[in-house]
Amino acid sequence: MPDVVFSVDQSRSMRDQAAPGHNRWHPDIPAVATVPPDTSIRIECREWTDGQILNSDTAKDVRDVDLSVAHMLSGPVAVEGAEPGDLLVVDILDLGPVPQTRGEAPGEGWGYTGIFAKENGGGFLTEEYPQACKAVWDFRGQVATSRHLPGVRFTGITHPGLFGTAPSHDLLAKWNERERALIATDPGRVPPLALPPLEQGVLAGTLGGSDLERVGREGARTVPARENGGNHDIKNFSRGSRVLYPVHVPGAKLSGGDLHFSQGDGEITFCGAIEMGGFIDMHVDLIKDGMSKYAVSTNPIFMPGNVEPRYTEFLSFIGISVDHKTNENHYNDATLAYRNACLNAVEYLKQFGYSGEQAYLILGSAPIEGRVSGVVDIPNACCSLYLPTAIFDFDIKPNAEGPRRADRGRCAVAQ
Amino acid sequence: MPDVVFSVDQSRSMRDQAAPGHNRWHPDIPAVATVPPDTSIRIECREWTDGQILNSDTAKDVRDVDLSVAHMLSGPVAVEGAEPGDLLVVDILDLGPVPQTRGEAPGEGWGYTGIFAKENGGGFLTEEYPQACKAVWDFRGQVATSRHLPGVRFTGITHPGLFGTAPSHDLLAKWNERERALIATDPGRVPPLALPPLEQGVLAGTLGGSDLERVGREGARTVPARENGGNHDIKNFSRGSRVLYPVHVPGAKLSGGDLHFSQGDGEITFCGAIEMGGFIDMHVDLIKDGMSKYAVSTNPIFMPGNVEPRYTEFLSFIGISVDHKTNENHYNDATLAYRNACLNAVEYLKQFGYSGEQAYLILGSAPIEGRVSGVVDIPNACCSLYLPTAIFDFDIKPNAEGPRRADRGRCAVAQ
Amino acid sequence: MPDVVFSVDQSRSMRDQAAPGHNRWHPDIPAVATVPPDTSIRIECREWTDGQILNSDTAKDVRDVDLSVAHMLSGPVAVEGAEPGDLLVVDILDLGPVPQTRGEAPGEGWGYTGIFAKENGGGFLTEEYPQACKAVWDFRGQVATSRHLPGVRFTGITHPGLFGTAPSHDLLAKWNERERALIATDPGRVPPLALPPLEQGVLAGTLGGSDLERVGREGARTVPARENGGNHDIKNFSRGSRVLYPVHVPGAKLSGGDLHFSQGDGEITFCGAIEMGGFIDMHVDLIKDGMSKYAVSTNPIFMPGNVEPRYTEFLSFIGISVDHKTNENHYNDATLAYRNACLNAVEYLKQFGYSGEQAYLILGSAPIEGRVSGVVDIPNACCSLYLPTAIFDFDIKPNAEGPRRADRGRCAVAQ
Amino acid sequence: MPDVVFSVDQSRSMRDQAAPGHNRWHPDIPAVATVPPDTSIRIECREWTDGQILNSDTAKDVRDVDLSVAHMLSGPVAVEGAEPGDLLVVDILDLGPVPQTRGEAPGEGWGYTGIFAKENGGGFLTEEYPQACKAVWDFRGQVATSRHLPGVRFTGITHPGLFGTAPSHDLLAKWNERERALIATDPGRVPPLALPPLEQGVLAGTLGGSDLERVGREGARTVPARENGGNHDIKNFSRGSRVLYPVHVPGAKLSGGDLHFSQGDGEITFCGAIEMGGFIDMHVDLIKDGMSKYAVSTNPIFMPGNVEPRYTEFLSFIGISVDHKTNENHYNDATLAYRNACLNAVEYLKQFGYSGEQAYLILGSAPIEGRVSGVVDIPNACCSLYLPTAIFDFDIKPNAEGPRRADRGRCAVAQ
Repeated sequence: MPDVVFSVDQSRSMRDQAAPGHNRWHPDIPAVATVPPDTSIRIECREWTDGQILNSDTAKDVRDVDLSVAHMLSGPVAVEGAEPGDLLVVDILDLGPVPQTRGEAPGEGWGYTGIFAKENGGGFLTEEYPQACKAVWDFRGQVATSRHLPGVRFTGITHPGLFGTAPSHDLLAKWNERERALIATDPGRVPPLALPPLEQGVLAGTLGGSDLERVGREGARTVPARENGGNHDIKNFSRGSRVLYPVHVPGAKLSGGDLHFSQGDGEITFCGAIEMGGFIDMHVDLIKDGMSKYAVSTNPIFMPGNVEPRYTEFLSFIGISVDHKTNENHYNDATLAYRNACLNAVEYLKQFGYSGEQAYLILGSAPIEGRVSGVVDIPNACCSLYLPTAIFDFDIKPNAEGPRRADRGRCAVAQ
Repeated sequence: MPDVVFSVDQSRSMRDQAAPGHNRWHPDIPAVATVPPDTSIRIECREWTDGQILNSDTAKDVRDVDLSVAHMLSGPVAVEGAEPGDLLVVDILDLGPVPQTRGEAPGEGWGYTGIFAKENGGGFLTEEYPQACKAVWDFRGQVATSRHLPGVRFTGITHPGLFGTAPSHDLLAKWNERERALIATDPGRVPPLALPPLEQGVLAGTLGGSDLERVGREGARTVPARENGGNHDIKNFSRGSRVLYPVHVPGAKLSGGDLHFSQGDGEITFCGAIEMGGFIDMHVDLIKDGMSKYAVSTNPIFMPGNVEPRYTEFLSFIGISVDHKTNENHYNDATLAYRNACLNAVEYLKQFGYSGEQAYLILGSAPIEGRVSGVVDIPNACCSLYLPTAIFDFDIKPNAEGPRRADRGRCAVAQ
Repeated sequence: MPDVVFSVDQSRSMRDQAAPGHNRWHPDIPAVATVPPDTSIRIECREWTDGQILNSDTAKDVRDVDLSVAHMLSGPVAVEGAEPGDLLVVDILDLGPVPQTRGEAPGEGWGYTGIFAKENGGGFLTEEYPQACKAVWDFRGQVATSRHLPGVRFTGITHPGLFGTAPSHDLLAKWNERERALIATDPGRVPPLALPPLEQGVLAGTLGGSDLERVGREGARTVPARENGGNHDIKNFSRGSRVLYPVHVPGAKLSGGDLHFSQGDGEITFCGAIEMGGFIDMHVDLIKDGMSKYAVSTNPIFMPGNVEPRYTEFLSFIGISVDHKTNENHYNDATLAYRNACLNAVEYLKQFGYSGEQAYLILGSAPIEGRVSGVVDIPNACCSLYLPTAIFDFDIKPNAEGPRRADRGRCAVAQ
Repeated sequence: MPDVVFSVDQSRSMRDQAAPGHNRWHPDIPAVATVPPDTSIRIECREWTDGQILNSDTAKDVRDVDLSVAHMLSGPVAVEGAEPGDLLVVDILDLGPVPQTRGEAPGEGWGYTGIFAKENGGGFLTEEYPQACKAVWDFRGQVATSRHLPGVRFTGITHPGLFGTAPSHDLLAKWNERERALIATDPGRVPPLALPPLEQGVLAGTLGGSDLERVGREGARTVPARENGGNHDIKNFSRGSRVLYPVHVPGAKLSGGDLHFSQGDGEITFCGAIEMGGFIDMHVDLIKDGMSKYAVSTNPIFMPGNVEPRYTEFLSFIGISVDHKTNENHYNDATLAYRNACLNAVEYLKQFGYSGEQAYLILGSAPIEGRVSGVVDIPNACCSLYLPTAIFDFDIKPNAEGPRRADRGRCAVAQ
């Protein structure tokens, strides 16, 4: 077990830790630790909302969640000698939920998947499923099951949703500029097009006073992935993977969290992963001048590990970039194509007795694969969604008799 | 070997076959054969442009290709008892290039990948790579190599780019309506937003005269995937896969072709697969009333086979929905995110000595995976591209020394 | 499709082909064709008994089979420039049953698995299952099913059971010497310990008269694997694999056949594979002086392909080197350990309604894996057998309720 | 993290723990804990020799190891309600080395692979490699590297070498009887044919005095696998696997240890795995009367997990049951066949610069697969060994140029 460079007491808020983390991207947030290259470290993490969601059978907590405090990140950890232009090589050695499994915090033996309300977060299918819902999952080893989703059981593809290096001031200014321009195209939209800096709820390590206010005014929200890495939500950042992050500031300043016990490609319910607190063990190293050597200018590159959960039989759904309700054709829109693939999968699973919300929660959390299948056959982008059949304890394959409908219980709702 | 229900003489155009195929979707194109359910059949196919592209070292043929004749499809084959609302169950038993390997037609021991010119077809990176280029591939068993892309060698994930059932008149009208509406938003665009019906070059089996003219006026172009299946370009429709097509007309009227020796997700150069003529063996059967039973309303569902080429080590590239040149942020645009992932991969491969065009051709044809990683982390969609490292005969993994640049030859260009 | 260098008319015996093959190993059997290195070739093959087994519901044919004529091999094919000490590099490009699927010969749309009678061939479990039995399999693409084994369906791992180079006279003498010595330790054993040269039934290409008699007197029987390759029955010599054979005579003289639609590790029923006639496409090349370069002195080396059928869930059985009936302990005997693992698997499958013979036939033909798990934990060798659960259309996993017993039909028997 | 039911202080001998374990199989060893069915538990384990081997560059410790104290097992743990005839269902949730990585005990950040001296333990190739040797491995996440084996790096397939239930008195008597009979056939053999009960070094939990002496006189040594499970050394008992053990005494009395960071099939150097102390998390449950329901009479059955390290390219070696030095033919001897496959692999690796001992150590510890390929082709059993090529940082595939020989360092030896 590597040395712990960021420790968390899961019974307390991130604000009340001995060394608190942060929830905005800003170069001025001070490093909590500095390590030399070629070092293994352990980082402990809070669940991304800082523990607002409970192990319960109502989704009121999801409906009313305060998103101004998210994502609660651990770090930053500085790496000696790292300079802008380097690549920070991060090997994900191990990660998992909180070792103590009996507590009340997410990650202590359980996690959850949420559908966020359209008015408070939204999600990929928010037009179809605008109400807050939740499924609570129990962990046994690498396997997850949920009382809210009977009949489903899978090996989680455990990964951090969010890690990244600190942006430089210039890069941060670029982000704020382009995101503000986007918001300005439809400022009243629900859900919003993007999230601007927000002073409410800001946490920036030990910073306080005017420094903290400045981070609140300038600091980038943590929701999207950007040039520093960030909230990739790439399920394949699992054990054994290697990620090479661009370095934008001296010391690199690596931060992260948002651990996921599992997730499907797309993380479609927004909070679509199985969310938890926990730990992550990493080895950090540097490729000096790596950005130039390998022409890495905008986003990290990575190599998945070789111990991802293995499935071989999939039922797959296709979507194209047509709005089938209105018969409107969008031009080569992979987002719409994938949304249609998801909707097709939801409708299919409903034939077996799941509610639409349950199906949506399954697709968000199980190790499904989302593929960009065709993006040149104008006007229709074509995406596909691969659902492993083995995660169900009944046969979901189509046959001449038709689906075996049964009572599949219910997920937690907000009423 | 199943009975051949559609045979092709590869030395002749599809127009000059004993029983010609077709190149538009229309319910009135007569079936060339009728088979009972639970039957195995062989269908022989022409390469999609009907043999316009040569085994040569110039891309002038690609630049000047006549796309009005594409895709040249084999069929339709009617299935007894099929009625609208059924699912047509197609098992892909086997497929491959033309058995005779010494001829001049694509598929006779060789195939090609083309970058289409922006003015004539375009492609996914057409803004960056607007000139026609080509790579010719040689086949040995399931393995492909190209004199235009030295250092690359892989097992093809062989599949048909395009199969589908005939649309009903109503469905066809819906398509024409929505695609015309899209075109109308920017009628002069190069490349165009969509392709309207076109009388030039039309082929409709044995139809002639006014019937043929009508198919030319009304028949849907074969480029996009639609509710009948169509040009999915899903690389996983390989040996052992099962596809369940919606049936829209009596007899289902299955047609297809556009065989690919291999392709990467997205088929990004447009003609990004390794294109060839060849054969496909299928078993066809019906699930009566399957569309309703399984809520399949818009697109086929499918199950990949278990003999796809297997790779375990990947180098992966990430893209987000930002135009990095202009610093413009697009909202949750997975198409742009995947384009950026592709561009990032191209830049990376250029460090090893490939030209951008060569890299683009590799990504189009090799069994890369394109994943929709995150589509909820507003405003940035996040897509990723998985490049199997084993397809290169040198090490492409990043390390402290930097890339081993070498002379990687050149692809065919149009000059 | 490569040039056919050895063609077979499946309606005739190997003896009656235009260019007959052979059924003994001997350096003097003349080559039927000579090809340069770096050449792709097609070889057509008869089923190994030369067509004695029928597509029928009795196993009398298996019981009474004339084994003096086996294995009927195609070849030899000489490679220009090959000299003793070289490695012959054989890439298996493609292989399969006879393309014409409607004939009566094995391979023409069907194949079989046989349990040989103890008195005529025997098998791995011949003490427990001494009677001849048979299962006939139908092929659809790469998938096999059997009317004699309902509930089972799998993708075959198609491969040649037997290929090899010709032995030198010295090597042949070595084989005869050691095998005669072994036989002499128990000459009357049933089944015999080894098979000595046998003039009855001998075929040696176009040789006749005293030459043929000499081959009959001296030629090694084809049953075992030896230093030339030979009857490996390694199921992983499938599409895409590469085998490097030692060269013992000028020209290498490659021969083979005994094509298997599928087989489990061990080929435990002796004729445990799914036997068929068919074709195999190979690419041949040379590594000059390869035996010395790579220290290959006794057996070929090989690399499996990357398109083997993929299964991920297995039920596994263990055996140790104890005779459990007599409580006799054998020292580190992996053969006995694997036999016990097989017997344990048979008993397990019987709980679901299969007869022991049916279970034995399944384990011989399905893509099971047999592993040498521990061979140092004295006195007990430990082997294990991995049975893919997905080949059954019912759930064979153990659970608290116990196995779901059902009528599983019956295999062909000899009465 | 489940409750710890057996804890270990790695700085002390198993004898000096608060609740010591045991090193013989005997029904009278008292349970250290009792848990209900459907419970998750953590068991901490000492390395199998109780810490005699050091992180050093000499193999004197291996040469002189006291094997009378091995294997040091943790347990027994009783399961409420378990009765003879039941199956004990053990899910391996997680396992790994000692969490604290800086200590001196094996498992604290490092492990070792040993070749045992012929006079003290021996191994699979002990005739060829009779001297004690050692390689020390360093762990980083799931990856192992060794300063004694430069150029090698792999993801470990971590598993317990040894778990089992307690034998009944009758079963124990059966073991002693058959093993004594075997020893009696060659009592002076070096290494011995089997290990009889031995009072020296015995440990039986809290038992002392005459009880302990009785266990010493009667208790079965832990080296072989038997009807209770035991020292299977099956590398696939890794994370996510399920093992179903026969129950022979009330409470089942599960014990185990001998954790391996990795191992190849066969564990050919005897101490061929990467040996370590550590922890294992298990979930235990019962199938009442499961032995009869599923005809499990002699050995456990199991299901491997779906997160085993994944390799797709292998170089494979073949062996047959011939003693090539003496040209003696053994009848269908899979042990000899696998030994020859191992020797062939060793000779191959030597061409690249490794010593024979280094190659032997690699094959013992890396995730190689050992297959029983053919055991019916009399007289020659045929086994094969699959070596994943990706574990080397240079190319080990054969080519026309020949192997790239280099200085590959040296392993620890006993001088």
